[in-house]
Amino acid sequence: MKTVHIKASTEYDVLIGRNLLSSAGEKCASLFGKCRAMIVADDTVAEIYLETVRNSFENAGIPAFDFVFPAGEESKNKDILFEILEAAAENELGRNDIMVALGGGVTGDLAGLASALYQRGIKLVQLPTTLLAAVDSSVGGKTAVDLENGKNLAGAFHQPSLVICDVDTFATLSEKVFSCGMAEVIKYGVLFDRELFEETKNGITDIEKIVEKCVVLKGKCVAEDEFDFGSRRLLNLGHTFAHSIEKMSGYEIAHGEAVAIGMVMASELSAEIGICDSSLADEIRSALIKNNLPVSCELGFEEIRSGMISDKKRNGEEIAFILPESIGKCVIRNIKF
Amino acid sequence: MKTVHIKASTEYDVLIGRNLLSSAGEKCASLFGKCRAMIVADDTVAEIYLETVRNSFENAGIPAFDFVFPAGEESKNKDILFEILEAAAENELGRNDIMVALGGGVTGDLAGLASALYQRGIKLVQLPTTLLAAVDSSVGGKTAVDLENGKNLAGAFHQPSLVICDVDTFATLSEKVFSCGMAEVIKYGVLFDRELFEETKNGITDIEKIVEKCVVLKGKCVAEDEFDFGSRRLLNLGHTFAHSIEKMSGYEIAHGEAVAIGMVMASELSAEIGICDSSLADEIRSALIKNNLPVSCELGFEEIRSGMISDKKRNGEEIAFILPESIGKCVIRNIKF
Repeated sequence: MKTVHIKASTEYDVLIGRNLLSSAGEKCASLFGKCRAMIVADDTVAEIYLETVRNSFENAGIPAFDFVFPAGEESKNKDILFEILEAAAENELGRNDIMVALGGGVTGDLAGLASALYQRGIKLVQLPTTLLAAVDSSVGGKTAVDLENGKNLAGAFHQPSLVICDVDTFATLSEKVFSCGMAEVIKYGVLFDRELFEETKNGITDIEKIVEKCVVLKGKCVAEDEFDFGSRRLLNLGHTFAHSIEKMSGYEIAHGEAVAIGMVMASELSAEIGICDSSLADEIRSALIKNNLPVSCELGFEEIRSGMISDKKRNGEEIAFILPESIGKCVIRNIKF
Repeated sequence: MKTVHIKASTEYDVLIGRNLLSSAGEKCASLFGKCRAMIVADDTVAEIYLETVRNSFENAGIPAFDFVFPAGEESKNKDILFEILEAAAENELGRNDIMVALGGGVTGDLAGLASALYQRGIKLVQLPTTLLAAVDSSVGGKTAVDLENGKNLAGAFHQPSLVICDVDTFATLSEKVFSCGMAEVIKYGVLFDRELFEETKNGITDIEKIVEKCVVLKGKCVAEDEFDFGSRRLLNLGHTFAHSIEKMSGYEIAHGEAVAIGMVMASELSAEIGICDSSLADEIRSALIKNNLPVSCELGFEEIRSGMISDKKRNGEEIAFILPESIGKCVIRNIKF
């Protein structure tokens, strides 16, 4: 098992390894002492892992109850959020108890925001079961639900108190969902680390090591700029395009796929305004294709542009783009668009 | 005009004086520079002050739009909260823009939480128009909406960036609403300051001075214990009873009235378990009556008790009570109840 320590406004460990779900309760009991746990999961994940996790908590002396919601991005809304909050209140969850997010990014975002809001903040434990959640959303404290007028527009910064990443759970992911995680992994390579990029550009071998590297890189960003006014914004590489692509496709295109397409568009834009050579886009495109990711979509430029106008990265009349200079180095540019 | 500086995790000024609403825009422009403002108010307050405030912002070069909701505690729910958030998104409020809470406690709580959540947090300016909001909710960063299962159960700590308290607005308050504010003023006296108690026990004369004293006292609590795990809990004097009284009366009894009754009950409980003399309850009762506040209600003990069980101040099987020892000094006791 690997441990990465995150130094945000509250510090916490990310545990990465195999067969960790069954000892999640034990780890929480030793960290948090006497408490109760509310486990939040979607119905797909609940069917596979809920019993294991609930037993793990109960066996460690932590009484646990659960809230299960329908799987899918469309659940990331105010109604499910407040159903979680009402369930917490009905079950008399207290200020010293913990909320557990068991699942992917949607679950982490929902349970994360619910734990930020419930009694103005209780402890959150992230148990990511997708590669995407493991390397991205489970670390760093960003939580949100979507508004009708845009993705992730209502949220909070609320750091977890513990993240346990059991990489065995990735075995139950479809190839597409795993690939979506790889889009974010490749993003870390393009942003910060040529070596990581090289290790991923033909598919990966050691998943624990890859997750650890990504979490270390993300942890650095979060420690430097927890509230996303400066360098953390680099993590949005591809995302300004991606949010629009997801939205304009009616969420037919998944987040990771949209990030892949967005990274290609960012590198093309970067080449167009002379920040990088056009061969960089080819290199990124090739790595994405090797990892079963799309590099283009049927949406036209004007469609994607209009979707971006309402994106929250817009600052006044300009849009902040993250643009690759070379593999391992990106810059932020505000561009009128 | 008096200025009180609050040293929370973010520091800010509370301006207290007369005829301040018409210069609110100017003060924001000099503090925040180029930005836009979203003004949130209930329909009662909007009718009296919205035009003044909006003009003040527009004249200071801050484009402003507004969101008006139906007056009343029952508006403090998730639906109005998300209507505010959607309106912010529709009007493309950005991360550098400000939300303005113009009104009493409900407005401050709603706009406060909306500003905490919108894009994971934008600046909030509080313009309290009730005595209660001026001395209590507009300072300290507690924001929340009610759940079906309890008051204030979903919220956030989000400090305002500026509070402008125009005491002239209190002239339009009904006698009852003003008295409700006095319950909190008297609370500060009982908690921390015999001199303040003496100045209020027969009604008050210098409102600016009284508000300033209360804000200074509240500011100290917030600076010491922003996130309410220790001494800030003293501010709940009377509130454990009050929340239950409000709830069990179907919100027929207003918050300030319930706090008045709750303070009497707390002092009676305090005398019963030997922490203070029974004359203390008489002294508090007398001051409340002189300020037109109720000191008892028709609810029975068991009703109030059952309402408290679900109150969020409960910690495990015990309930934390704030109990007066003497005027100016209170203690926190966990009591099985």
